[in-house]
Amino acid sequence: MIRRTKGEQTRAAILDQAVDVASRMGLEGLTIGSLAEATGMSKSGLFAHFGSREGLQLATLEHVKASFGEQVLTPVLGVDRGLPRLRALFLAWIGWKAAPGPGGCVLQSAAHEYDDRPGLIRDSVVDGQRRGLAMIERAVRVAIEESHLRAETDPAQIAFEMYGQILVAHNHSRLLGDREGRKRALLAFDELVARHAATPRQRAAA
Amino acid sequence: MIRRTKGEQTRAAILDQAVDVASRMGLEGLTIGSLAEATGMSKSGLFAHFGSREGLQLATLEHVKASFGEQVLTPVLGVDRGLPRLRALFLAWIGWKAAPGPGGCVLQSAAHEYDDRPGLIRDSVVDGQRRGLAMIERAVRVAIEESHLRAETDPAQIAFEMYGQILVAHNHSRLLGDREGRKRALLAFDELVARHAATPRQRAAA
Repeated sequence: MIRRTKGEQTRAAILDQAVDVASRMGLEGLTIGSLAEATGMSKSGLFAHFGSREGLQLATLEHVKASFGEQVLTPVLGVDRGLPRLRALFLAWIGWKAAPGPGGCVLQSAAHEYDDRPGLIRDSVVDGQRRGLAMIERAVRVAIEESHLRAETDPAQIAFEMYGQILVAHNHSRLLGDREGRKRALLAFDELVARHAATPRQRAAA
Repeated sequence: MIRRTKGEQTRAAILDQAVDVASRMGLEGLTIGSLAEATGMSKSGLFAHFGSREGLQLATLEHVKASFGEQVLTPVLGVDRGLPRLRALFLAWIGWKAAPGPGGCVLQSAAHEYDDRPGLIRDSVVDGQRRGLAMIERAVRVAIEESHLRAETDPAQIAFEMYGQILVAHNHSRLLGDREGRKRALLAFDELVARHAATPRQRAAA
C-alpha cells in the first residue's frame, strides 16, 4: 500500500473517474468537459489539476500504467522464478481490466486511436507497451537462467507471441463474448513454452 | 473485376473516402460533416446517399469488408489447397491495409471503439470478425482433408492463435515501428502448423 497525501488521494480519485470515462468513450472522448460531467467537479478546478486536455489525457495514461504495475506486474514478482512466474504474468495480464466498468483497456484502445498521430500521447502509449513487453522478456530471461527454457530461446519472440495471445484473448472475450478465450490462450502459452523447454539433460547440466 | 453502374461507382468512390476518414479518425470521427469536408460534396447529397450518420458508418464497414474479401480472401482461393492456402491467407491478412493512407484497419479500431456499445455498428464489426475467423477455420479443415494437418486438429484453436499473431503483427508494425513483426508472426505460424502436422505415416494412410 502506497501512502498518499490528501492532495494525492484527490488526484487519484479524479484519475480513477478519468480512466472510467476513457475506458467507455476512448481517450478521444476524455475532455475536461466530459470529466467535469462525470465527477461533478468544476471545469476550472480540473484545469487547475491538469493544465490542459492533453495534460489530463497523459495523466490518465500514467494512472492506467501505474494500476497495471500494481495489479499485474508487482504481484507476479512474488511467484517462483522462471516458468511459474512467466505463466502467472501471462494469466494476470489476460485477466487485467483497466476499469471496473464494461469498458476495455484504455492503453489498448488508445493504441488504435493514436497509432498514426505523432505526439506525447502516442509516445506514452508506446512507452506503456514497451515496458510490458520488456517485463515479459525479463521473465523469459529468468526462465532461461533457471534452466526452464533453453539458452537459445529468443525472449523477444516469446514476448511477441505471448502478446498476440493476450490481444486475441481480450478481443474474443470483449467483442465476441467467447468464454473459451482464456483456455485457448493458455493452451497456446503452454505449447509455446513446451517448444522452448530445456531437456532434462540440459536441466541436469545447468 | 466487378462491373458497376455509374451510381454504384459514385457510391464506391465516396465510400473509399469514408474509409480513409475512418481510418485516420476512427469510425467515431466519421460524420456526414467530416465526409462532406473530405469529399467536397454537400451534406444534403451525402444524406441522400446514406440516410443518416449511422447509415454512413454501416455502409463504410460493409465497404471495408468487401475490400478485405477482394484483396485478402478471394486471391487466396487460387492458391493450392491445404497448408499453402492457409499460409497464403495468413500472409495476405498480415499485409492487409484498409486504406492507402497511414491509418489502420477500420474494422480493428472499431472493435475497440464499439466493443462495449451494443447496436448495429457493433453487430457489423462482430460479423466481420466472425467471417474472417470462419475463413481461417475453413482453410484449416481443407488442410486436414488434404492430410497436411492431423485429423484431431481443432480449427477454432488454430484460428484463435493465428488471429493473435495477426493482431500483434499489425500492432508492432503500426505502433512500435517494428520491422521484424512479419518475420516473427511467420515463425509463430510455421511452428504452429508444424505442431499439428500429420506424420508421414498418417499422410500415406490418407
